[in-house]
Amino acid sequence: MIDLRPVLMVIGILLSVLAAAMCLPALVDWYAGQQEWQVFATTAGVTGFFGVGLALTNRSGAGKISLRQAFLLTTLSWVTVTVFAALPFRFSELDLSFTNALFEATSGITTTGSTVIVGLDSAPPGILLWRALLQWIGGVGIVVVAIVILPMLRVGGMQLFRIESPGQSEKALPRVTQIATAIGAIYAGFSAMLFAAYWAAGMDAFEAVVHAMTTIATGGFSTSDASFAHFDSTLIDTIAIAGMLAGALPFLLYLRAIQGSPRALFRDSQVRFFLGVVATLIVVVAVYLWLDNGVAFGRAFRYAGFNVISIITGTGYANADYYRWGNFATPIFFFIMFLGGCAGSTSCGIKIFRLQVLASAARAQIHKMLQPHGVFIPYYNGRPVSEEIITAVLSFVFVFGFSFGILAFALGLVGLDFITALSGAATAISNVGPALGPIIGPAGTFQPLPDVAKWLLIIGMMLGRLELFTVLVLFSRTFWRL
Amino acid sequence: MIDLRPVLMVIGILLSVLAAAMCLPALVDWYAGQQEWQVFATTAGVTGFFGVGLALTNRSGAGKISLRQAFLLTTLSWVTVTVFAALPFRFSELDLSFTNALFEATSGITTTGSTVIVGLDSAPPGILLWRALLQWIGGVGIVVVAIVILPMLRVGGMQLFRIESPGQSEKALPRVTQIATAIGAIYAGFSAMLFAAYWAAGMDAFEAVVHAMTTIATGGFSTSDASFAHFDSTLIDTIAIAGMLAGALPFLLYLRAIQGSPRALFRDSQVRFFLGVVATLIVVVAVYLWLDNGVAFGRAFRYAGFNVISIITGTGYANADYYRWGNFATPIFFFIMFLGGCAGSTSCGIKIFRLQVLASAARAQIHKMLQPHGVFIPYYNGRPVSEEIITAVLSFVFVFGFSFGILAFALGLVGLDFITALSGAATAISNVGPALGPIIGPAGTFQPLPDVAKWLLIIGMMLGRLELFTVLVLFSRTFWRL
Repeated sequence: MIDLRPVLMVIGILLSVLAAAMCLPALVDWYAGQQEWQVFATTAGVTGFFGVGLALTNRSGAGKISLRQAFLLTTLSWVTVTVFAALPFRFSELDLSFTNALFEATSGITTTGSTVIVGLDSAPPGILLWRALLQWIGGVGIVVVAIVILPMLRVGGMQLFRIESPGQSEKALPRVTQIATAIGAIYAGFSAMLFAAYWAAGMDAFEAVVHAMTTIATGGFSTSDASFAHFDSTLIDTIAIAGMLAGALPFLLYLRAIQGSPRALFRDSQVRFFLGVVATLIVVVAVYLWLDNGVAFGRAFRYAGFNVISIITGTGYANADYYRWGNFATPIFFFIMFLGGCAGSTSCGIKIFRLQVLASAARAQIHKMLQPHGVFIPYYNGRPVSEEIITAVLSFVFVFGFSFGILAFALGLVGLDFITALSGAATAISNVGPALGPIIGPAGTFQPLPDVAKWLLIIGMMLGRLELFTVLVLFSRTFWRL
Repeated sequence: MIDLRPVLMVIGILLSVLAAAMCLPALVDWYAGQQEWQVFATTAGVTGFFGVGLALTNRSGAGKISLRQAFLLTTLSWVTVTVFAALPFRFSELDLSFTNALFEATSGITTTGSTVIVGLDSAPPGILLWRALLQWIGGVGIVVVAIVILPMLRVGGMQLFRIESPGQSEKALPRVTQIATAIGAIYAGFSAMLFAAYWAAGMDAFEAVVHAMTTIATGGFSTSDASFAHFDSTLIDTIAIAGMLAGALPFLLYLRAIQGSPRALFRDSQVRFFLGVVATLIVVVAVYLWLDNGVAFGRAFRYAGFNVISIITGTGYANADYYRWGNFATPIFFFIMFLGGCAGSTSCGIKIFRLQVLASAARAQIHKMLQPHGVFIPYYNGRPVSEEIITAVLSFVFVFGFSFGILAFALGLVGLDFITALSGAATAISNVGPALGPIIGPAGTFQPLPDVAKWLLIIGMMLGRLELFTVLVLFSRTFWRL
């Protein structure tokens, strides 16, 4: 049997943090004279009660945690936090159904950014802040998990990014805590910079806070149904572009940069490849917009840059309805949903390093075919990659594709049309936000979908955020039998 | 430098065979009193001239062929044969453009079954026979290549199906020739059986010949624009179902069955899994058709069975426009395009054994994550699978997915709408035939597409048929530098 106490204790602590976070929207609503503050105060009380209770009753002496406890903790904490995070949505004046409330909370915590709420512009500030806070917490949470936990769990080849030498996870614990704290500080620093920039560029203070939080988290929740089209400002769009890119790069390299090797960031093959792909796609889309759709040159680059970066990083802001740009744009926006940013960032999807490892493996494969007795080792970031990591990465991509297929398939069975089913599955599993098509495209919301579809998307978002294997492992018989 | 002589000699022989095949439609047209016979006679002469010329001028003593020659031969022979096979289409009274003629020929040779010809019902018999002959030749060609050549070239994990012990390819040559001949005989036997069955079930002799050839080849060309809806016969549909399934099973197992182990066929994990997947899908689709669309129970099973099997085996016949069955069916038909049948059959796509290897690798991956120091070996068909094969299979699927993405992306840039671009790319690379949507769906043709799109699809069909790596290897610098 697995000793659940350390798992429940950590979940208790996380719920207490969540309860504390709920006090912020309560304050804001109270300050704005909204009755809504009572909802947040109540749910904060309930969440805090469970959180403190769990933490106190499950205190355990040792700081050690086993592999299986780590798997269980990662999935269980994400799910539990999401359920409690849904409470304010359920009981607010928006009067969301339980399904809708859970959908919105999942979309927040996983930094997806899909929404079921129509009428953001007139929603009480507390709810808007709560959505942003969820993405902000989810964003820093996943960065820490991706840097500290996933490499230890060897999920989808993440062992490539181990920070300590293998087998020393216990000794390295203080170092890990140090790193997590530093990452948190960097994350907060970026948020503060984005807040200042947005504010200076013309957002009001509240809008600046919300968008700063959802930008660095590559989340995508906004204060307006029109998203960034509401501001229609080149300056604000540019700040968002910089912020979304910052959120999609490896946070560990920021730490190295601060520690004295700023060039590490630009020498990293993942970062270079990512920026190269982004630049190429922007040029292709901008040129098409300019020549084919007759959009002015500068405007074409602004729209292309903003929306391509928003989707590839999995943020999900929009300053234009790219679903109406014509046939050329739809497959582009569909396929880049899958890409995602770098490992150890707030963005989701397959992620650039996996594509690089795969391309490297495919190249080695071609050489192997030509010289069957030769030995060809794939390289990543200038270093040889072991067979173990290649198999892990390849399995990840296979399971990713398979899960996407099953999800799209199921959404079709539920009755969604082809583009809604396919792009909905993609946007959920890659934690992007908007999808394609007339319903859930950049100009729509997920509100009209049937409840079953929303539940399927909730599962998809959660699976995608936790890099699939972290969750799937819990469904293997071995996990419970060991 | 690569010695091209043995390559050119084999291509010469293949062209001579093609020229001989052209005489059949010439005879049929002459017998039917169609002036068209002159076109076939002329192109047969031209093709024969080049074929015999190439074969004679490139005679080389040794029967051995190097790895690189084998790669070059496979791709080059398929391309050359296709170009010559396009001549009758170009110069027939159908007056196809060069692009259209090449598209039709590629679709034939690769056993895809997509067509640019409208008005099949009134087309001269020679052309109809020529289309069927191309699929028939392409079908037996790919089975022999998949059994004899691809395992030697280690393409996409096909080394799983080596028939001789490795390193003995020269000694095994007589055995290989023997096997190829036996496979050809089995193929011809199936064709004869299908002809007799179709004829007995009510097709006229000509229709029976054409459909027998395109059924066993899982090709899908028909004598009518309405495909099998033209006959509207449960008996004929049932014969086609049996024939398509026969074409999609491993031909090597038929050989074993004849040699005295008939149970080998049903003990093979690939065959069992394939039939299981097919049966499940048919039930799902049939039940939906019955309950949701109100189609009578028996009819629902007939339509579901026929069309699911037609698409999953990559045949491409249709007896109903499944694109109009509603939202539930579209993603199903989209995803099953990729599946394909078994290795060493006439069908294309990712193929069942690769999915089994991948699922097995993913399972081993989950165990490895739980017990990092354990050793977990994936199994296929009851035997352990080496790391080398897993990487080969995984690389294949990655390159398959990537090529599909690039192709769909390019089709979008050319201006095709989302469903046409995505399903067109899928149908080409998996050699299925019809795609989805209002233009190239089961009720449409590829004729209205722009020429650039047709060229892209031609490349896709060829790449898919030759299992991608066989072609891609030619574009590596190592190939030419060795």
